[in-house]
Amino acid sequence: MTRSAEPDPGTCRIRLDLSYDGAGFHGWASQPGLRTVQDEVERALATVLGLPAVRVTVAGRTDTGVHARGQVAHADVPADRWPGDQLLTTSGPVLRRLAGLLPPDVRIRAIGPAPDGFDARFSALWRRYSYRVCDESAAADPLRRGDTLWHPRPLDVALMNEAAAALAGEHDFAAFCRRREGASTVRALLRLEWQRTAPGLAVAAVVADAFCHNMVRALTGALLAVGDGRKPPGWPAAVLAARIRDPAVHVAPAHALCLEEVRYPAPGELAARAAATRRLRC
Amino acid sequence: MTRSAEPDPGTCRIRLDLSYDGAGFHGWASQPGLRTVQDEVERALATVLGLPAVRVTVAGRTDTGVHARGQVAHADVPADRWPGDQLLTTSGPVLRRLAGLLPPDVRIRAIGPAPDGFDARFSALWRRYSYRVCDESAAADPLRRGDTLWHPRPLDVALMNEAAAALAGEHDFAAFCRRREGASTVRALLRLEWQRTAPGLAVAAVVADAFCHNMVRALTGALLAVGDGRKPPGWPAAVLAARIRDPAVHVAPAHALCLEEVRYPAPGELAARAAATRRLRC
Repeated sequence: MTRSAEPDPGTCRIRLDLSYDGAGFHGWASQPGLRTVQDEVERALATVLGLPAVRVTVAGRTDTGVHARGQVAHADVPADRWPGDQLLTTSGPVLRRLAGLLPPDVRIRAIGPAPDGFDARFSALWRRYSYRVCDESAAADPLRRGDTLWHPRPLDVALMNEAAAALAGEHDFAAFCRRREGASTVRALLRLEWQRTAPGLAVAAVVADAFCHNMVRALTGALLAVGDGRKPPGWPAAVLAARIRDPAVHVAPAHALCLEEVRYPAPGELAARAAATRRLRC
Repeated sequence: MTRSAEPDPGTCRIRLDLSYDGAGFHGWASQPGLRTVQDEVERALATVLGLPAVRVTVAGRTDTGVHARGQVAHADVPADRWPGDQLLTTSGPVLRRLAGLLPPDVRIRAIGPAPDGFDARFSALWRRYSYRVCDESAAADPLRRGDTLWHPRPLDVALMNEAAAALAGEHDFAAFCRRREGASTVRALLRLEWQRTAPGLAVAAVVADAFCHNMVRALTGALLAVGDGRKPPGWPAAVLAARIRDPAVHVAPAHALCLEEVRYPAPGELAARAAATRRLRC
């Protein structure tokens, strides 16, 4: 992942904001023979722009079954293929044609030229995920079973937040990640907070500069064990401090996880942010 | 439908509150060879109570594809099969066994002995449905596509409410019903109101003492035509006054309709309400 920060001359960098239901996909990233969000989006975009192929780079490479409401991506396309007067827009002919081409489980919400220095992956300041858990069988809503975990035991949200508070900040999250050779597992966890948004429903907001693989689901699994009394509130922090994967941490199911938002700095600071991120992660 | 108002001696009338995702069902009512909610619920209940069969009567016989979050039903079961000390409950062993037996697209939220005079269908004071429409493609949420209509044109909710206000009250709704031989089409429409609950999302609340077949979806179809400017706000009231089906009224799709609530009178008035309803409807 060491593509140049700036698009080639003669190309225009397009930003896409998108949502998808992860249930029918083997995650974001292209894989031979499997249905992925990336393939669907690249195919539709190439058709609309009349190109043989388009390559899309994404802010958060979601796993199989994980949803997104606020995914962000970019693509570099020949400048003459993009209607020059179009700014980032939530309507218009390109979006209408994309909506017609894409299957109903992927929607492009906005599209248009990205500001100078924008890189969907490397310019991001932080990503926010949600995790939805129903812990009361009377509140289980069959219409939301596709994005909600039905947990068989009641959760103490206050205990979970007590445990979560001890994980915030910049740490080596190796204990909660599937390690990738040569890659850092140091991340800044900016927020990890559970709220009861309705009776029987607890929703986590998880914000970090970036996430390692499986990190949100492993953190969630550890906090669910605290919430239903299987583990004491100090346990997740002890796991973190050990810096090795603990088999007692169960990775929570993918279908209740959703990428809600990716935040970028002001336009003038995009390139500097991207350069700084590259130094840290590559 | 002239079953006696009271359960047979030696039986106990059980009330069930349930939710379901209508997508996988050919509606509520049993039909040979088709998957229906009634069959799933009756089978699970019979298994849990150790009976060869149980017959369940429901408040709102939803059509194919229509959802429910607040459906109510009753079943008369041999008194010795029901744990006598259990009141209407949202937890406990019977509910846990039902949750284990039922498929994830049906949930029983509460179960227990009904008060004297209770009849899920005939004692009801009113039913409340919701209808969810997204009218802005940037707001289309793939995760809610199963219970939301994606309408291709923006809706003017104020105009829709102006049109709806003229439909409230007791009328012959023949123009908005699929007529059934010998049955009255007079209904009291207690509330029909659209609200923007989020940008790009309009939700109707529709309350009536009871609904004829297709009535909510036909009313919704007429109001969508007003909302996007195809028809003037006075049109639905003119259709109502004509008292015959108007082919210009398109019945709105089933998948965005949900039975949210069934309201009953205080326990002492249940039997009187059921008797009055029977006189009107049968």
